[in-house]
Amino acid sequence: MIGIIMGSKSDLPVMQEAADVLKELGVPYEITIVSAHRTPERMYEYGKSAHTRGIKAIIAGAGGAAHLPGMVASLSPLPVIGVPVKSRNSIDGWDSVLSILQMPGGVPVATVALDGAKNAGILAAQIVGSSDEAIMQNIINYKEGLKTKVLKSAADLEGK
Amino acid sequence: MIGIIMGSKSDLPVMQEAADVLKELGVPYEITIVSAHRTPERMYEYGKSAHTRGIKAIIAGAGGAAHLPGMVASLSPLPVIGVPVKSRNSIDGWDSVLSILQMPGGVPVATVALDGAKNAGILAAQIVGSSDEAIMQNIINYKEGLKTKVLKSAADLEGK
Amino acid sequence: MIGIIMGSKSDLPVMQEAADVLKELGVPYEITIVSAHRTPERMYEYGKSAHTRGIKAIIAGAGGAAHLPGMVASLSPLPVIGVPVKSRNSIDGWDSVLSILQMPGGVPVATVALDGAKNAGILAAQIVGSSDEAIMQNIINYKEGLKTKVLKSAADLEGK
Amino acid sequence: MIGIIMGSKSDLPVMQEAADVLKELGVPYEITIVSAHRTPERMYEYGKSAHTRGIKAIIAGAGGAAHLPGMVASLSPLPVIGVPVKSRNSIDGWDSVLSILQMPGGVPVATVALDGAKNAGILAAQIVGSSDEAIMQNIINYKEGLKTKVLKSAADLEGK
Amino acid sequence: MIGIIMGSKSDLPVMQEAADVLKELGVPYEITIVSAHRTPERMYEYGKSAHTRGIKAIIAGAGGAAHLPGMVASLSPLPVIGVPVKSRNSIDGWDSVLSILQMPGGVPVATVALDGAKNAGILAAQIVGSSDEAIMQNIINYKEGLKTKVLKSAADLEGK
Amino acid sequence: MIGIIMGSKSDLPVMQEAADVLKELGVPYEITIVSAHRTPERMYEYGKSAHTRGIKAIIAGAGGAAHLPGMVASLSPLPVIGVPVKSRNSIDGWDSVLSILQMPGGVPVATVALDGAKNAGILAAQIVGSSDEAIMQNIINYKEGLKTKVLKSAADLEGK
Amino acid sequence: MIGIIMGSKSDLPVMQEAADVLKELGVPYEITIVSAHRTPERMYEYGKSAHTRGIKAIIAGAGGAAHLPGMVASLSPLPVIGVPVKSRNSIDGWDSVLSILQMPGGVPVATVALDGAKNAGILAAQIVGSSDEAIMQNIINYKEGLKTKVLKSAADLEGK
Amino acid sequence: MIGIIMGSKSDLPVMQEAADVLKELGVPYEITIVSAHRTPERMYEYGKSAHTRGIKAIIAGAGGAAHLPGMVASLSPLPVIGVPVKSRNSIDGWDSVLSILQMPGGVPVATVALDGAKNAGILAAQIVGSSDEAIMQNIINYKEGLKTKVLKSAADLEGK
Repeated sequence: MIGIIMGSKSDLPVMQEAADVLKELGVPYEITIVSAHRTPERMYEYGKSAHTRGIKAIIAGAGGAAHLPGMVASLSPLPVIGVPVKSRNSIDGWDSVLSILQMPGGVPVATVALDGAKNAGILAAQIVGSSDEAIMQNIINYKEGLKTKVLKSAADLEGK
Repeated sequence: MIGIIMGSKSDLPVMQEAADVLKELGVPYEITIVSAHRTPERMYEYGKSAHTRGIKAIIAGAGGAAHLPGMVASLSPLPVIGVPVKSRNSIDGWDSVLSILQMPGGVPVATVALDGAKNAGILAAQIVGSSDEAIMQNIINYKEGLKTKVLKSAADLEGK
Repeated sequence: MIGIIMGSKSDLPVMQEAADVLKELGVPYEITIVSAHRTPERMYEYGKSAHTRGIKAIIAGAGGAAHLPGMVASLSPLPVIGVPVKSRNSIDGWDSVLSILQMPGGVPVATVALDGAKNAGILAAQIVGSSDEAIMQNIINYKEGLKTKVLKSAADLEGK
Repeated sequence: MIGIIMGSKSDLPVMQEAADVLKELGVPYEITIVSAHRTPERMYEYGKSAHTRGIKAIIAGAGGAAHLPGMVASLSPLPVIGVPVKSRNSIDGWDSVLSILQMPGGVPVATVALDGAKNAGILAAQIVGSSDEAIMQNIINYKEGLKTKVLKSAADLEGK
Repeated sequence: MIGIIMGSKSDLPVMQEAADVLKELGVPYEITIVSAHRTPERMYEYGKSAHTRGIKAIIAGAGGAAHLPGMVASLSPLPVIGVPVKSRNSIDGWDSVLSILQMPGGVPVATVALDGAKNAGILAAQIVGSSDEAIMQNIINYKEGLKTKVLKSAADLEGK
Repeated sequence: MIGIIMGSKSDLPVMQEAADVLKELGVPYEITIVSAHRTPERMYEYGKSAHTRGIKAIIAGAGGAAHLPGMVASLSPLPVIGVPVKSRNSIDGWDSVLSILQMPGGVPVATVALDGAKNAGILAAQIVGSSDEAIMQNIINYKEGLKTKVLKSAADLEGK
Repeated sequence: MIGIIMGSKSDLPVMQEAADVLKELGVPYEITIVSAHRTPERMYEYGKSAHTRGIKAIIAGAGGAAHLPGMVASLSPLPVIGVPVKSRNSIDGWDSVLSILQMPGGVPVATVALDGAKNAGILAAQIVGSSDEAIMQNIINYKEGLKTKVLKSAADLEGK
Repeated sequence: MIGIIMGSKSDLPVMQEAADVLKELGVPYEITIVSAHRTPERMYEYGKSAHTRGIKAIIAGAGGAAHLPGMVASLSPLPVIGVPVKSRNSIDGWDSVLSILQMPGGVPVATVALDGAKNAGILAAQIVGSSDEAIMQNIINYKEGLKTKVLKSAADLEGK
């Protein structure tokens, strides 16, 4: 089970992509809203308890001065994947990228690209897949699918 | 009473300037270390209780993906002043500046310049001074002192 | 009483949010336009006299090479809150952010996020609240309101 | 087993920290040099075979236009952790950070902070720990150790 | 013969400009899609064989963490021209610019401006032209054409 | 007469170059310290009176959130040349560059390069020279001198 | 007489503002297109001859890798005002700003804000005004007009 | 024959690497100083005549607002390779990178990494090699040499 959390309802259009790709790769997930700044107690409980509830990795997305991924990483022993979301009033996304990426020694966050929730989902599946052969096989198949699409595009372009 | 906290012992050379100027301006303070990422429970207790212990404002300094000022601001109803510290491995200080400045609507942090702990101390004194005439007068005198030093430098340069 | 000033009429859509949240938090305010570059005398008088007229803190918003917050901070002993406004021809907002944030030692400006006028209003209320229990209670209630909205959003999302 | 690779011998002082923390957390590793640009065939073989040799995650560090982490992620179904290294002639580290972080949809790299090899090691251990209780316990203990050090520093500072 | 490749079908509107200007300058080309991250084997074969098929220079365009130009440069002894493409979710184009430009010593990529595929085509023609007088003359004529257009614009403006 | 002012004594090593080149070009100058933030009244008087005292242009240097050039430009009808100084705690000089360059419509500052005080002096001389043939001739001679030095260096290098 | 030049017809909507404000301030001007990269000979002649034709200052606008202002400054002894234009495919305007601002010692360009052609016109008028009392008076009147507009806006806002 | 030029004697320590690698690859070169801003006539003659003297490609290095590579590209029909040099007072190298890279459509500069003169030399050799089999073979051998060094480093590290 993967836990997907986000700081605000407005992050959902981005974060839904993590859920969609987990479904495609056969990895169960739960999804909810946990705000570091507006519900710090809820974040505390989520972070402290996730690994005791069978969660294998946490995907956390947030924008601006994005503290949710790093704070959950401080509270949980699980791998935490951070998704910088380009929010309204963001300074071109640099704020969320740097707030999530530049964690101090001892408390890592596995950061993906700006608005890169799909990749966060794939990464979570890879973490599960590193000790689950069926999921590993789904990832290998997924990568084959990517390749097939590119080869199709290439053939289309060359055929023009 | 002003509470000064910092994320790591390595922030002390910068943060000491806040303490020094508060002393100069006649404002009592306490100073300690509270790490958002390594002691989240301690941060939680500090943030939740500060206003009940007579603290009037909190100065919080941190580097890199600096979550301490924003998290304390989420936990406390007091004004929180954030000091971006240029830590080792910082990307030129942009990481701490943006992690502290770009807080979402509802949870402000009063951000000062990179390594600007002295200004954080003055700002805390101004907050106290806005309802305490003696401290207000100390600030007015402090500003006079700044002016006198510049006029002395100007006279020295012109006298060359 | 909080003084809200801005460098240009074009800043009003952003700066109105400071006024709105102060009203919601029960803190009286006045609002006007003071341009550092086009009405320097007016700025001088405003800065010099604000604390003698019962103003407790000043919120100053400006864009581009934004000098209003820092210059008012140099003229007044009050706490000054600076709002970087993303104006037309701005270089992604970096100009107003850095012009307001990076004040020299001795003259702080409490800077909030780009276009973060709402947070400037809350911060001004927190400054008042640090010596006024009724306003402090309004802030505590406001924070509870933020939490309630997030919990509602979370329940909605989980219920999907 | 974790595979640690780096693009150049000059990355070793940074990347050694990944090895050291893995040792401390009880996770076996192998370490070598694989250059995307100077030994592309070697990289190809490494990426294609790692998961068949019992490797559970790959840590890849590189500087400048850093292609090693992303290319290995394209070749392997394993989770790949990227460490941006601030090399000589780097433009303040931005080049390696963005070359590793901004991967396209479908091919994630779990990016850590600039020169953040220690955190890459911890993250790799967390990936192993998500399905290995003994390693998970080591991580929990490691976090307790971080906390103890901060509390000691805080007591020292307060005792001054 | 010039080889034009791009990482994704979505890069075609930008990359078509390289093909168009090569046609205008009388230089034959081939064009297709080769993804570094989704078809690494195809990229390997393309890079290894291009110079044996009569290709004189390679134009490679990609966005985000753009690895195609640099990887092809590592695989081929030919001059490789890199076109940073401003893709969706790019951080203002900085990611593709730095991923292509900041190559390590030993493996150059001739980088052109963001979305500068037309200039990539001209540069490829100049490379051919440096040992082919007819193409060189076409370039000289092309530059005369640029000049004529500016002089016409200037006359129009002055005539106003 | 050119007026050279700077925000702090610490700017003198940079600003002295403006004085030196003015002397070399035969243009008289005065030099002193005027701080926007610490001596706002002094700045006001300087800006308001400079053109009545025979000053033809003002060179103003400052670092960080550099308000001196723009504020003097708002107070004086003279051309104002701004020198961004890279001060201690500057964010790589971006703060002073943007605080001086990005002035709003109506109040220009003629900005030169970071720490470019020599060029500020030459520009002031060019302003004088635009209506003074002797100074114009000095500038023409100065440019000849630059050329001679380059030709000497070129001959040295080629002679190696 | 002020010379206004621009690198491309597409810069005209921005550069027209320089012409308009010069007209308003009573300063004659000429305006045309001179491309550094497409008409280098024309630029050479323009730069070499301008001061012999009664031009007092040159305003040069360009975008991207903007070489026109700096090259004209190298060719002419007149003060040259550079206008960074935010062109299509610009990297947020940084390219033209830095290409114009960061001139080497010996060859200044008086740089104004991004797309700041109006300020370039005012600055040119100030250069003329520094030795022409009638133009100086026009500038003083213009500044009064700016002030009047702000006071009117302020009265409107306060009257709400 | 490759022409290597640089804007200033101070660029020589960087630019010498281009000469050294050309020598190693068996490609003849000439090297001198040509300043865009201080010797514009010399630059004009160099650019206009290079292709008539048997030069096959030009390598041009410059720092700050670096106009030499782009201006030579406007004057010559040859491929021009630009080397951004990180000069004193540079803003972290961004100024020279953007001044060289962001050329307008029609006038390409083949830009290499900051201080990347070695790669400029290799690129020039590749241009020659695209129609000269002996030089092409030298490049293939050079790349083999890079690979051998990495394999040696890898063996050393693994043997530890």
